[in-house]
Amino acid sequence: MLCLLGGPAAAQQKKADATWIWYPGDYEIWLSNKMQARRTERGAFFPPLWRYYSPYALVTFQKHFTLPEDDIIRISAEGDCKIQLDGAMYYGDPSRMTVPAGKHHLTVKVYNQERTPALFVQGKHLASDPSWEVTYEDKEWIDETGRASGQSGTEWQQAGSWNFNSPENNPSAFKLETTPQYAVSVSEEEHGVITDFGKETFGFIRLHGLKGEGKIKLYYGESEEEARSVEACETLDEITVDDTLPETYTLDTSKAFRYVQVRTEGTARVDSISMLYEYLPLEYRGSFKSSDDLLNEIWEVSAYTMHLTTREFFIDGIKRDRWIWSGDAYQSYLMNYYLFFDNPSVKRTLFALRGKDPVNSHINTIMDYSFYWFLGVYDYYLYSGDKDFIRQIYPGMVSLMDFCLQRRNENNMVQGLPGDWVFIDWADGLSKEGEVSFEQLLLARSLEAMSLCAGIVEDNEAAETYKKETEALKQDIFSAFWSEEEQAFLHNRVAGKTIDKITRYTNMFAIFFDYLNGQQKQGVKQNVLLNDEVQQITTPYMRFYELEALCAMGEQEYVLDEIRDYWGGMLNLGATSFWEKYDPSEKGADQLAMYGRPFGKSLCHAWGASPIYLFGKYYLGVKPVTPGYETYSVEPDLGGLKWMEGKVPTPEGEIEVYCSTGEMRIRGAGGTGTLTFRSKIPPVCREGEIKNTAEDTYQLQIAPGETYNIKYKYKN
Amino acid sequence: MLCLLGGPAAAQQKKADATWIWYPGDYEIWLSNKMQARRTERGAFFPPLWRYYSPYALVTFQKHFTLPEDDIIRISAEGDCKIQLDGAMYYGDPSRMTVPAGKHHLTVKVYNQERTPALFVQGKHLASDPSWEVTYEDKEWIDETGRASGQSGTEWQQAGSWNFNSPENNPSAFKLETTPQYAVSVSEEEHGVITDFGKETFGFIRLHGLKGEGKIKLYYGESEEEARSVEACETLDEITVDDTLPETYTLDTSKAFRYVQVRTEGTARVDSISMLYEYLPLEYRGSFKSSDDLLNEIWEVSAYTMHLTTREFFIDGIKRDRWIWSGDAYQSYLMNYYLFFDNPSVKRTLFALRGKDPVNSHINTIMDYSFYWFLGVYDYYLYSGDKDFIRQIYPGMVSLMDFCLQRRNENNMVQGLPGDWVFIDWADGLSKEGEVSFEQLLLARSLEAMSLCAGIVEDNEAAETYKKETEALKQDIFSAFWSEEEQAFLHNRVAGKTIDKITRYTNMFAIFFDYLNGQQKQGVKQNVLLNDEVQQITTPYMRFYELEALCAMGEQEYVLDEIRDYWGGMLNLGATSFWEKYDPSEKGADQLAMYGRPFGKSLCHAWGASPIYLFGKYYLGVKPVTPGYETYSVEPDLGGLKWMEGKVPTPEGEIEVYCSTGEMRIRGAGGTGTLTFRSKIPPVCREGEIKNTAEDTYQLQIAPGETYNIKYKYKN
Repeated sequence: MLCLLGGPAAAQQKKADATWIWYPGDYEIWLSNKMQARRTERGAFFPPLWRYYSPYALVTFQKHFTLPEDDIIRISAEGDCKIQLDGAMYYGDPSRMTVPAGKHHLTVKVYNQERTPALFVQGKHLASDPSWEVTYEDKEWIDETGRASGQSGTEWQQAGSWNFNSPENNPSAFKLETTPQYAVSVSEEEHGVITDFGKETFGFIRLHGLKGEGKIKLYYGESEEEARSVEACETLDEITVDDTLPETYTLDTSKAFRYVQVRTEGTARVDSISMLYEYLPLEYRGSFKSSDDLLNEIWEVSAYTMHLTTREFFIDGIKRDRWIWSGDAYQSYLMNYYLFFDNPSVKRTLFALRGKDPVNSHINTIMDYSFYWFLGVYDYYLYSGDKDFIRQIYPGMVSLMDFCLQRRNENNMVQGLPGDWVFIDWADGLSKEGEVSFEQLLLARSLEAMSLCAGIVEDNEAAETYKKETEALKQDIFSAFWSEEEQAFLHNRVAGKTIDKITRYTNMFAIFFDYLNGQQKQGVKQNVLLNDEVQQITTPYMRFYELEALCAMGEQEYVLDEIRDYWGGMLNLGATSFWEKYDPSEKGADQLAMYGRPFGKSLCHAWGASPIYLFGKYYLGVKPVTPGYETYSVEPDLGGLKWMEGKVPTPEGEIEVYCSTGEMRIRGAGGTGTLTFRSKIPPVCREGEIKNTAEDTYQLQIAPGETYNIKYKYKN
Repeated sequence: MLCLLGGPAAAQQKKADATWIWYPGDYEIWLSNKMQARRTERGAFFPPLWRYYSPYALVTFQKHFTLPEDDIIRISAEGDCKIQLDGAMYYGDPSRMTVPAGKHHLTVKVYNQERTPALFVQGKHLASDPSWEVTYEDKEWIDETGRASGQSGTEWQQAGSWNFNSPENNPSAFKLETTPQYAVSVSEEEHGVITDFGKETFGFIRLHGLKGEGKIKLYYGESEEEARSVEACETLDEITVDDTLPETYTLDTSKAFRYVQVRTEGTARVDSISMLYEYLPLEYRGSFKSSDDLLNEIWEVSAYTMHLTTREFFIDGIKRDRWIWSGDAYQSYLMNYYLFFDNPSVKRTLFALRGKDPVNSHINTIMDYSFYWFLGVYDYYLYSGDKDFIRQIYPGMVSLMDFCLQRRNENNMVQGLPGDWVFIDWADGLSKEGEVSFEQLLLARSLEAMSLCAGIVEDNEAAETYKKETEALKQDIFSAFWSEEEQAFLHNRVAGKTIDKITRYTNMFAIFFDYLNGQQKQGVKQNVLLNDEVQQITTPYMRFYELEALCAMGEQEYVLDEIRDYWGGMLNLGATSFWEKYDPSEKGADQLAMYGRPFGKSLCHAWGASPIYLFGKYYLGVKPVTPGYETYSVEPDLGGLKWMEGKVPTPEGEIEVYCSTGEMRIRGAGGTGTLTFRSKIPPVCREGEIKNTAEDTYQLQIAPGETYNIKYKYKN
């Protein structure tokens, strides 16, 4: 086929950029239902514990547009569709509809009970894209004469979309990418063969050289112990071999593993196994390298952990749940901003978690997880500046917040009612009773998110109301839980009586929420964060926040040591991805157990990857100041390293930072940055003007895309 | 195979009666989505105007039970399922699960995104049935040790079911029955062949003797004019003939028609056509016959009209919409009680109409149609006495009523807001403006229904509240709309000013709602019902209520004349089923037009069948007094006929009535009846004691199943 570039022939071939569109959130809900129902436990189906929502089965898309000339458009739909041009029913061929030049109104109603109703329209000028409007209830009716009512009351939303940009690439057929991977070693045992793929991985096992008749059984293991344990491994597969199977057979369900034990029954035999690694194609836009090889390895393993758990959605872990947990996902969002900066993954996950109305329970049934969801929206806007998404998600924010507020007690505080799981953390003896200060703190931050987003959608009255609610709750939190004596927040209040117990959670969050004054922060740091008598945290989940709080207090050097100990500790035990939980005091196979099962623990858990976030935000020191990195700050902190370098992604390019004790090299991205640093000598930079803002503190404005080379002498 | 009856072998074969179960309402929603999306207009897909809901994709079923001995049960599910016995995961074969004797708790979680999750369990003792509980959100969670939480907050409902009583008979495969039918005449025309099936019918066309290549086009007509009109017939089909088609080919979509025009293109040829009549198998339990053959024919054609429109659900008409409209369905419920007494059809329709939460608009977007839905629930309970259904539907009643009450204005009255279709009736120039008295009246009755049902589910506080709301609204209706001068309700109030206009609607409903005293009733009868200057009703839809009101006022003789005129008028024009609208003044083809289209009118519309209801309730005179016909009344009224006889179905058998001017024969059904009649002479009955309750009025108690022969002299 001859393809002419440019000239009149090409102009005739020209098609407008089109993408598949749907009701915002609906495809995400549908895809997440499918994905989350893929969990199995020893071969048995194991769906989520919480409620499933479904897409609207019947939706209407519309577009008002003006054509400069006649256009021939092709309409493709996932589902049956009814097409109306300028209010008149179209009975013709949807793959070739001629629309004359001029002003028009196209309406397409799509019905699909099984999959998400979706639409693709493409002409020379007209194309389906997120500017189309969509509704689940087109309240139109006619009178006896066939005239349509003018008073419709229909509520339209901007259409949702992702990256399905051709008519053939229909959303319901979405699959992750795959690529072949091979074993690094194979060992024959008495009853089976154990294959080692060299590191934690995820994919479809392929069986080569199948022959005979009988069963082949696969026992998966994140550890060798697990793959050996026919009785207790968490996942397994079974294939019946007969002459209908090809010589090479690929399983149709993907699993997480490093090791696989293969056993055969009857005359069934298999020569070898390999795998198709299954992944979401993403660019590693963030990076980190330093003078400390251990930290570099920790960053690499964190990034791999993060990639393995960033799939159709941000999931918790790849072996067991493979579900979307809001608290886990919240950390993935933050890590994502310093690694992939993949907005669609954040949006998909937020939509999937929120589901639809009515709200009958907290997200994942967990109270804290509802609040993390609000925090996730707040941060997404800060990092991306994406107002369109806020407009799409705002109705869902309001109904979830209504649910939360209706569950407050007479003190306007939340506490666990029947059906509410108050989680906080996996920690021995942690009280969930009564009014837990941590939950109130998260609610306060959620109310802040509501106020911000209400402002974006110009619901100004609501913005004001939420602001007042926030202020009132913050005051109540201080009067109920702040101990002047201990200079720390107490954990909870039961039946009106504040319990004299301090835990880390509320205290560390209050620091990076910036709810404390300088003196209070110092109190919390000394009396809680650096106080070994306060119960230690053993999950990477809460280590994330603990270390963030310490970093926010300038304890970068201390935190690096902690990272070397804790994440380095996992590496010492052979980790190739980071774990759901790590307790250095546990020995041997105990490290693999959880939930009362010998291999219950996930060895690849998103919340294990937090160093990505800490290195980017608190060492390279880059963060947005206004939404979407329109302005941002760079405050490198070596934390005792000789040098470090890395990239932090933003909506418009990466910010690049090199920092040693004598030199800095900063390259700006799209927005305007402010570099702040301390120096023992007056610093020099040819490319920009350095201002001395305090005794030994200096600032430099970073223009979009410019590079600055600075000579200075690092001061902590 | 040898089949032993009785004895130990048979005992071993015994299986408990089981039926497929699901979340109540979910199968009905799914099936109604499918059915309502089958509407086409000239080949183009034409789905409903209103919102679609979907079944819960993930539901949990549970049963606590005690087995007298070990039981081997078979579990079948529509969807993937997770089975837990006594809290422990079951990894074995679900078609053969052994449950030991004793007390147990079985939980089955079923996931199905495409169809309604459904479950069938059958053992010797254990079986799935409506006593099982089901939830869409099993709020269980575990702690780190794997222990389940005790504080679940899960809300369980009684399972829904219908008549799918074997594991192979799965609900999603449901199809109506079919039976062959043949043409009564065929006429060859210039361009095509017109086949007449002799009467209005519904089904799949079969093409016989197919040969050649090309297209075959089918033009359907409820009238011959429509089938002839290639340009304007409402429905059509097109088949491409080639050598892959069998000689006899049955279309896969069913249509309504009496006439079909067949045209061929190319060398395609067809010898003849027949059809598969498609229907819901139902028993005609009610009957009516009298000394007037015209009335007998009207009853027969009404019953056929009713059967054609009683399908997966009660639909409006079979040609065009094939949708479930609440106002239309409400009349079908009432007719059903006097013809099929098929409770499942009423329940399916009420569930499908209600959909799910949240409520964002009125049912079918029509305000009056929300209220008819409440009335439908009220009547269903009165006729069936089915408390289980009330318990299942009550949560949906509450949320719909909340929606209605929230839309009231400062006078606590409803009026059309954007998105509300105020329908009332197809009538020229009918005002829908402001506070329409008719809508308030329907709301008052709906509040009565709420109060009744709240009492049934023992929500006593709500019952009291709804009762107070009812009383307050009734008073407001009288003070706003009752004209002492005109002794009638006025139509509406706009901007605080009552408009000096009377229409029939509010007035006739107030009569059979029994909201008027004797004097007021007489006023309404004379000034409205029998007053030709008040705008006439032209739809069978509202004729239903108008005639009911007149019957309730004892005008049976007048009403019979009206029936002869109006329904007889349609028969005179060749009707074989009754119409959507009939205006005797229209001539020729104008009778076929509606909605601005020459064949827009439906010639088989459920609301055309009301004589069934009137004959049963107001001539045979049978109606329940307490729920489920536990007590009932029989008050035959000949309305000028020499004799009449018929049956009225009840939950337990039919009540049989024969009545002439000199004799009556009554056979009781399950409950206890009271026969009331007037006689010019002292009546005689050997089988029971007749009481003289007023001057010439007599009463007789009818015992269950007993027959009473009465000699008397009929007095009107």
